[in-house]
Amino acid sequence: MIIGTLGPEGSFSEKAAKQWNDKAELRYYDDILDTVDALLRDEVDCSIVPIENSLEGSITLTLDLLMEQQLKIVGEVIVQIRHCLLSKGRLADLKILMSIPQALSQCKKYIKQNFKNIEVRTTLSTSQAAKLASEAKHIAAIASRESARIYGLEILDEDIQDVNENFTRFIVIGRTTPPATGNDKTSLIVYLEKNRPGALYEILGEFATEGIDLTKIESRPTKRVLGDYLFYIDLKGHIEDRIIKDALERVKSKVGMLKVLGSYPAAE
Amino acid sequence: MIIGTLGPEGSFSEKAAKQWNDKAELRYYDDILDTVDALLRDEVDCSIVPIENSLEGSITLTLDLLMEQQLKIVGEVIVQIRHCLLSKGRLADLKILMSIPQALSQCKKYIKQNFKNIEVRTTLSTSQAAKLASEAKHIAAIASRESARIYGLEILDEDIQDVNENFTRFIVIGRTTPPATGNDKTSLIVYLEKNRPGALYEILGEFATEGIDLTKIESRPTKRVLGDYLFYIDLKGHIEDRIIKDALERVKSKVGMLKVLGSYPAAE
Repeated sequence: MIIGTLGPEGSFSEKAAKQWNDKAELRYYDDILDTVDALLRDEVDCSIVPIENSLEGSITLTLDLLMEQQLKIVGEVIVQIRHCLLSKGRLADLKILMSIPQALSQCKKYIKQNFKNIEVRTTLSTSQAAKLASEAKHIAAIASRESARIYGLEILDEDIQDVNENFTRFIVIGRTTPPATGNDKTSLIVYLEKNRPGALYEILGEFATEGIDLTKIESRPTKRVLGDYLFYIDLKGHIEDRIIKDALERVKSKVGMLKVLGSYPAAE
Repeated sequence: MIIGTLGPEGSFSEKAAKQWNDKAELRYYDDILDTVDALLRDEVDCSIVPIENSLEGSITLTLDLLMEQQLKIVGEVIVQIRHCLLSKGRLADLKILMSIPQALSQCKKYIKQNFKNIEVRTTLSTSQAAKLASEAKHIAAIASRESARIYGLEILDEDIQDVNENFTRFIVIGRTTPPATGNDKTSLIVYLEKNRPGALYEILGEFATEGIDLTKIESRPTKRVLGDYLFYIDLKGHIEDRIIKDALERVKSKVGMLKVLGSYPAAE
């Protein structure tokens, strides 16, 4: 099995891929878009991309791709994120700090406290930042411990995220819906009819009255008009469960659009 | 009246401030956090910050500040966003492209089509990018037409956003709740009891059964545990309307936390 993941080596996405299947061959891509495209181009059997962080919230690019492309979610993986400050130089040498926007935001207080006039640059992955930091002593990266080893960097500081409980949920995009395991999740996108008050309430009622538990509901703009939204809903259960299947049939008849993204085993 | 806004001059936040009150004195701040802090430090009478864009969705930093600080929303302003490519140099000279992450994302396709190997750097405001671009011919900024005038830049291209309908909603943070006008909005943050299925449905029911129209519902992580959310709700009506007041009383008795952010006249 070949898994597409965000590279280069040492990224948290790579960690997610190994956590999901430690025997698979990995292929590395530059950004989320390219990682997802790799599956659509048939270069990989599945792709793993981040969708949500416990501090930063949703990775909106991933949510938008789920709407725009024909993708199937076949699994989820939760990875603990522990950021390190990595460099070839010493603290006093540092002039540029690099990482992905999410990591920079997760370490906001740490950066403010420890660096006065450092120039902050964003990269496409934490491991890309580590790779760039390996090229000059005045560059530091916020990245994983694993990246330090791979790119020959010193760990100047560790666990520098502002809140210790820092987890990212990744989704596995693939081709075949896995069978029900008894502990599954189903992900949907719903577009309600615009300007019909109470429409969301009515839809949630279809799940609530059947005791179907929603684990997440999130809105995203339709990108047409300000104030017009899609709703991303995760619920407990498998699309092959009779109760879920029936509820979705009823929901479908009441909304402008229902897109089932997939059913897959819930992560611990 | 003194309004705090994201600077330097020429930012879309400045445009929002002028649209809201064209006679006020403006004070410029470096970032959203500082703009909000200016009000808390009593340097300004109110502050204007972006909260939502029709393409990119919510500005999560603003949402998080509304939860963390004691802030009152007293107004909203909607501004059309039209991005220009600005520089002192010519297209062939450009080596670095600067703007805020949202603007870069709004012009993603344009950048991909027109620039092969340009280095992209993020700034804290579009007008900061324009100011930096005025210092060297190999730097271009994505910013407003107004910024070109202020910083003496050429407009190399205009309306370069990928989707023409591009609007940002700004909120005005202030001290006194404005009286009801008959066309108002009220903003709330609700924390449901964790792991109680159907809780959100029940809360939305309190509004739906009274015919109260929700204009927005959005989730944000509580930053404690992955999968634990706050809900940001905007509804039509004023906190002094009897029907709204009563509904909020009932909601309050059913949730873990209800924070009323304010009532204010709805923007057109």
